[in-house]
Amino acid sequence: MAGRLSVIGVMGPAETATVLDLSRAYQLGVAIAEQGWVLLTGGRQAGVMAAASQGAKAAGGLTLGILPGGDGAEAAEGVDIAIVTDLGQARNNINVLTADVTIACGMGLGTASEIALALKAGKQVILLADAPEAACFFQGLAGDRLKVVATVEAALDWVKAILHELQTGPRPRH
Amino acid sequence: MAGRLSVIGVMGPAETATVLDLSRAYQLGVAIAEQGWVLLTGGRQAGVMAAASQGAKAAGGLTLGILPGGDGAEAAEGVDIAIVTDLGQARNNINVLTADVTIACGMGLGTASEIALALKAGKQVILLADAPEAACFFQGLAGDRLKVVATVEAALDWVKAILHELQTGPRPRH
Amino acid sequence: MAGRLSVIGVMGPAETATVLDLSRAYQLGVAIAEQGWVLLTGGRQAGVMAAASQGAKAAGGLTLGILPGGDGAEAAEGVDIAIVTDLGQARNNINVLTADVTIACGMGLGTASEIALALKAGKQVILLADAPEAACFFQGLAGDRLKVVATVEAALDWVKAILHELQTGPRPRH
Amino acid sequence: MAGRLSVIGVMGPAETATVLDLSRAYQLGVAIAEQGWVLLTGGRQAGVMAAASQGAKAAGGLTLGILPGGDGAEAAEGVDIAIVTDLGQARNNINVLTADVTIACGMGLGTASEIALALKAGKQVILLADAPEAACFFQGLAGDRLKVVATVEAALDWVKAILHELQTGPRPRH
Repeated sequence: MAGRLSVIGVMGPAETATVLDLSRAYQLGVAIAEQGWVLLTGGRQAGVMAAASQGAKAAGGLTLGILPGGDGAEAAEGVDIAIVTDLGQARNNINVLTADVTIACGMGLGTASEIALALKAGKQVILLADAPEAACFFQGLAGDRLKVVATVEAALDWVKAILHELQTGPRPRH
Repeated sequence: MAGRLSVIGVMGPAETATVLDLSRAYQLGVAIAEQGWVLLTGGRQAGVMAAASQGAKAAGGLTLGILPGGDGAEAAEGVDIAIVTDLGQARNNINVLTADVTIACGMGLGTASEIALALKAGKQVILLADAPEAACFFQGLAGDRLKVVATVEAALDWVKAILHELQTGPRPRH
Repeated sequence: MAGRLSVIGVMGPAETATVLDLSRAYQLGVAIAEQGWVLLTGGRQAGVMAAASQGAKAAGGLTLGILPGGDGAEAAEGVDIAIVTDLGQARNNINVLTADVTIACGMGLGTASEIALALKAGKQVILLADAPEAACFFQGLAGDRLKVVATVEAALDWVKAILHELQTGPRPRH
Repeated sequence: MAGRLSVIGVMGPAETATVLDLSRAYQLGVAIAEQGWVLLTGGRQAGVMAAASQGAKAAGGLTLGILPGGDGAEAAEGVDIAIVTDLGQARNNINVLTADVTIACGMGLGTASEIALALKAGKQVILLADAPEAACFFQGLAGDRLKVVATVEAALDWVKAILHELQTGPRPRH
């Protein structure tokens, strides 16, 4: 392997994830693996975390799970490397600082904290959720650093654009 | 002193605080001190953190500042006890877990993360900000655990009610 | 109250504390309160943490407990202000960064981590324990920044000297 | 890839590492990669962290760096996946909770904190360092959960034995 691997975070609700959230998370996991990127999730055997990890593993990818608890046993089946933080929800900040790009897939209170922390750290976030209030709220605070999309494909297009920008510096503005 | 002290968190923007945010933060600090409660803020010499601490000190109160950096020198003048975390924004979770009640005074990305983390922890939050998008978004996620108020007085009424509930258990519902 | 309060940390074993550790911790708590300093401990209802807090309260002092868990209910009876971190043992770093001076009263694995972290942060540490291996090990790594003492009185003399140095800058060396 | 990967932590001094520490760290990195294990270090471009990562990469392995700062730019060249914690030395607890086995290669204050935290968490630690005071001190606190070795080969033998024990449960005692 040569050089630092790109890490893409997929964040989303656990027990309250919808069927659509889970389907999108799985597809995101597949696509991230197919691109050769590392998938990062919150790591638990629940909701979007588990679905994205399962998708990435189905496509032969590498998966990280940043666990809130103090024991690796809580990791989802699809997690290759369990980072055991014992930090509770404070680990959400590690999720977004570690991911080169964060995708919010669905919405919940933990996800909301991650979007806020990622934007606070100056990062761009992709929102794939039927959550117009979230879009309105976070775009009011962070402008177009929040990319609101309606499909997995559109999310991936933004991931590619943001990774390109990170590797080459910001595009010139005329 | 007898028994655990009540700790009230006042969270809000730093450099982007409005004049109204600062005025309300100062008044909240005064009122919290007058009630004999301990004021908790993010501790830095900026915005709502500094204004609330200054108000509490003017009224003879006791103030905690939960600092993000690794050196107590960044503490606001009005902070009596600086908790030096060196955790960056991960310290936001400590703010809301430590406060018996959290008041969001104004809005920003750090404040948004604190509201999300407090509600995620099952706590009640008081929102004193001209931020209808925030109210809409967080009430959609947490229902009436987010109390939206328009005045310092209304915020204090909710603090008293929530503290009473914490000390006596939830009120019966008929 | 005027200006930042001095915070003195008393660290030591929980369930494995000896009777001598507990007696010294209680006396340290009393003395810290009598000096008008704030006592900081790890906050739980066990061992040195509980004994020091009890001593400080008996002498009318103010006590902080930096809790490892996510719920204030684990705080010792003598804790006035419970800082709820939910960080597990990662909170040990907050203990030593927050304390102006750290006293290790007795020895255990948690205490060892706190001595190491305090010295790593460039701080001075007072060791009051019948632990010659600890003294030898940490003095080998940090020289005379580890002060080894045999009595509560000697520990307090060092606290005063270190606080004086912090407030006035290091003493000149001829 | 199938199932959770084994993660081996190599901890040791940064700027104060000796030539022997660096040589051993490099060899440990090589051996860990050859076994198909993931290498975990503190991630910075310094001392034992950098040498172990370089060794693992030379042998085609996969490397994690758990960084103390808030920016991945501080990662060592040999780090494939940079976990950006922004936790300062509090990240030491993540290092040892995440590693299935921790090897202390050389000695310093950060390393001492990691040994203490790993043993505190109930884990076994391998000490490969010319540090009899450390061996004496930590064995006094944790007994034979600290394995003291003099060669890279002996360290690897212990890693294999501990991983085997973790996968099969503790060996029966007659």
